[in-house]
Amino acid sequence: MADNKKLVAEITSMDEDFTQWYTDVCIKADLVSYSNIKGCMVIKPAGYAIWELIQKHLDARFKETGVQNAYLPMFIPESLLQKEKDHVEGFAPEVAWVTHGGLEPLAERYCVRPTSETLFCDYYKGEIHSYKDLPQVLNQWCSVVRWEKETRPFLRSREFLWQEGHTAHATFEEAEERTQQMLNVYADFLENDMAIPVIKGQKTDKEKFAGAEATYTVEALMHDGRALQSATSHNFGDGFAKAFGIQYAGKDNQLHYVNQTSWGLTTRTIGAMIMVHGDNSGLVVPPKIAPIQVVVIPIQQKKEGVLDAAYDIAKSLSAFRVKTDDTDRTPGYKFSEQEMRGIPVRIEIGPKDLEAGKCVLVRRDTREKIECAISDVPAKVGELLDQIQKDMFDRAKKHLEAHTFAAHNKEEFEEAFKETKGFVKAMWCGCRECEDKIKEDYNVTSRCIPFEQEKLSETCVVCGKPATKMVYWGRAY
Amino acid sequence: MADNKKLVAEITSMDEDFTQWYTDVCIKADLVSYSNIKGCMVIKPAGYAIWELIQKHLDARFKETGVQNAYLPMFIPESLLQKEKDHVEGFAPEVAWVTHGGLEPLAERYCVRPTSETLFCDYYKGEIHSYKDLPQVLNQWCSVVRWEKETRPFLRSREFLWQEGHTAHATFEEAEERTQQMLNVYADFLENDMAIPVIKGQKTDKEKFAGAEATYTVEALMHDGRALQSATSHNFGDGFAKAFGIQYAGKDNQLHYVNQTSWGLTTRTIGAMIMVHGDNSGLVVPPKIAPIQVVVIPIQQKKEGVLDAAYDIAKSLSAFRVKTDDTDRTPGYKFSEQEMRGIPVRIEIGPKDLEAGKCVLVRRDTREKIECAISDVPAKVGELLDQIQKDMFDRAKKHLEAHTFAAHNKEEFEEAFKETKGFVKAMWCGCRECEDKIKEDYNVTSRCIPFEQEKLSETCVVCGKPATKMVYWGRAY
Repeated sequence: MADNKKLVAEITSMDEDFTQWYTDVCIKADLVSYSNIKGCMVIKPAGYAIWELIQKHLDARFKETGVQNAYLPMFIPESLLQKEKDHVEGFAPEVAWVTHGGLEPLAERYCVRPTSETLFCDYYKGEIHSYKDLPQVLNQWCSVVRWEKETRPFLRSREFLWQEGHTAHATFEEAEERTQQMLNVYADFLENDMAIPVIKGQKTDKEKFAGAEATYTVEALMHDGRALQSATSHNFGDGFAKAFGIQYAGKDNQLHYVNQTSWGLTTRTIGAMIMVHGDNSGLVVPPKIAPIQVVVIPIQQKKEGVLDAAYDIAKSLSAFRVKTDDTDRTPGYKFSEQEMRGIPVRIEIGPKDLEAGKCVLVRRDTREKIECAISDVPAKVGELLDQIQKDMFDRAKKHLEAHTFAAHNKEEFEEAFKETKGFVKAMWCGCRECEDKIKEDYNVTSRCIPFEQEKLSETCVVCGKPATKMVYWGRAY
Repeated sequence: MADNKKLVAEITSMDEDFTQWYTDVCIKADLVSYSNIKGCMVIKPAGYAIWELIQKHLDARFKETGVQNAYLPMFIPESLLQKEKDHVEGFAPEVAWVTHGGLEPLAERYCVRPTSETLFCDYYKGEIHSYKDLPQVLNQWCSVVRWEKETRPFLRSREFLWQEGHTAHATFEEAEERTQQMLNVYADFLENDMAIPVIKGQKTDKEKFAGAEATYTVEALMHDGRALQSATSHNFGDGFAKAFGIQYAGKDNQLHYVNQTSWGLTTRTIGAMIMVHGDNSGLVVPPKIAPIQVVVIPIQQKKEGVLDAAYDIAKSLSAFRVKTDDTDRTPGYKFSEQEMRGIPVRIEIGPKDLEAGKCVLVRRDTREKIECAISDVPAKVGELLDQIQKDMFDRAKKHLEAHTFAAHNKEEFEEAFKETKGFVKAMWCGCRECEDKIKEDYNVTSRCIPFEQEKLSETCVVCGKPATKMVYWGRAY
């Protein structure tokens, strides 16, 4: 990164090597840097600014539904982690253990939270006594640690940032309603702000969260045809409540167990954004979450009036997140930087434009060049950003549709995963054996049982027994 | 907390037992809850909402000065922590050590960051090559861990939230300028948003940060006369750069070490707010950082029109953070809750008021009641919030001045710390022995060498040798 001239030259073509292209973009667009702490990344300002906008948009949506933020400790005593059987089995193998505080060994070792269900249960046990204390609808923004073996920036790292919502309700139905509500919040956020179309559905029992009765997911399709689980929402029923003894006195004066949910979205959303929208010139950031929406680039900036005109244009765009690139690098360099960083619109203004009272707007997504009178710039930029946001979603939606295949029988299913890159939808009997066999034979997993069901055939594509559900299958990040 | 009726009855008088009063307020105002993780606290929604407003105000000020946010890993390998000698001595005795990742022991143990100088140095070493890469002005919002023995909510806990800024500059002078600039940002924020007057000054060598050349501080005075260090800003010179080998090629084509700074403010600011502004009815929150600025409380709310009038008033106050308390609890209960939580203004509206087209505004800080025509409420509330913010600062400033004493000689100094609760300013020769002796004899520490110096006498109050500085002394949290 030190030698700026290499900015564009060194990026791998996405068709040649998608994995390397992804890494190149992460590094060249200055989103992350590898740290010397194995498996952990540094999120650099350009990457963190995107996360801040994700937080802003999502947090506002949360608060509209009555969510309150709080902060719980980052440590979980081993005995607390062990209280819910499925949960500890799911997480204990991949946690970081603290054994010493200062110079003293701890009486009991603590793990750094991999997720905070157990901590929220412990907290709710002290807070909830009566039906008047319900519902509890809390969320926290924090980092969590999972000791992964293979790591990749944003997609899988030993420490990552996320939000985790944890709620407690009087009834199963209320918990279910909240679980679905938050899934819809995620879908709405991903589609409208990140321009990432998603498939909403339920995880199979095999793929659900450790300790959950039901896990719902929003699944997105990356440019290379692999799936990415983009957010999940879990209904725990009263399983955790029974393990932790969280009871409330109802209006009937009887004690009842609460019903709980949790739901989360992580920094891997930034990875999804890169892999859904990026191209061979680098990042393409949707306008709503672009830290810089418009960059004004003066051409021949030493010519009289050019730089001032660039500043004036930027000033007229104060309703947007705008920057003027007045550094002494060449315009060509500035153009490729704007492309690499995925800034939605660049404005070129040179001496001839200035004379004619106009400038050129260039879309990052389509590279379309639009001549525009300087006085019309604010209105035109507003329109253009809306249009880009919409077009990015539409293109991603088309890609998703074009890479979703229906397999009506075993042959089609087999054929699909030989060549196909994308989702394959197929009928399933509902049994674990068939799911395991598909994983074994084709190295794909069930992504979800979509809410929008179709009846592609009468029988399971594996065993031929009567089908109960249509499932989306795919290779996942 | 479950039995709401105990809300007011159980709070200890601050004059009787200030420590217990503080704890009572933290708990009764629903700011925190003790967790089962020893020394760690749960920051509850009412407390976290204050932290969110602190973040918002401070982050905006940071960004105005060119600060960018980033995120670095939470773990520090032991070898990295040890690179700077003074720094490791200062922090190693109080860190939490991670020894296992999943089921495997780590090759090298990691500590959970107690502060991130070493991590930023490691990062900057990879990022900084030329003078063109400077300055680097980064900040992160995160939690840190220090394994304290004695803990108290907000004031001292094993995990706490903070921001830590870390910068790198070409010259010592630039680093010094940034160090002072950030101290001024803190002072401005504390005085204007938190209504907490501060003394700005430099720490003595004994009290400065582990590894710093100079530490600047803003010191506040609590209601009980004890001092609270409210934020600090450090100039490291090139000490860390030499330990970590962070060099850049200057315009002169020679290699130079960078000069670095760091600066931080923590959740203990909430503790300061409680102890500067609180009273025997609970919290008093300055309007600018009050999550709820106005609560509308209907009186006899079942009478026709009352509840609707309350909602209408709240609606007319959409420019403020407003809530209507329409629960079925008694008005008296609602009043004490508003007082306990420190909501700056409450509005009482009952059937008679409604008939007369008016309502009553009650200030939390002075309890003053103000009759107001319903149509005038928005304007009046705006004025009132400004006035409360100003008056809270003025009262705190008066308290600070009334509890700051000048000791002109040894006798006055001794006398001061027998009776006095507050700051004592006195002349000092500048030597460590006298500073140690004061700590030993009076159990007070040097709070700072204030930027605004006075010449109270010619000689040090301890040794009688020529004085070089006036120092603020006090007992600190």
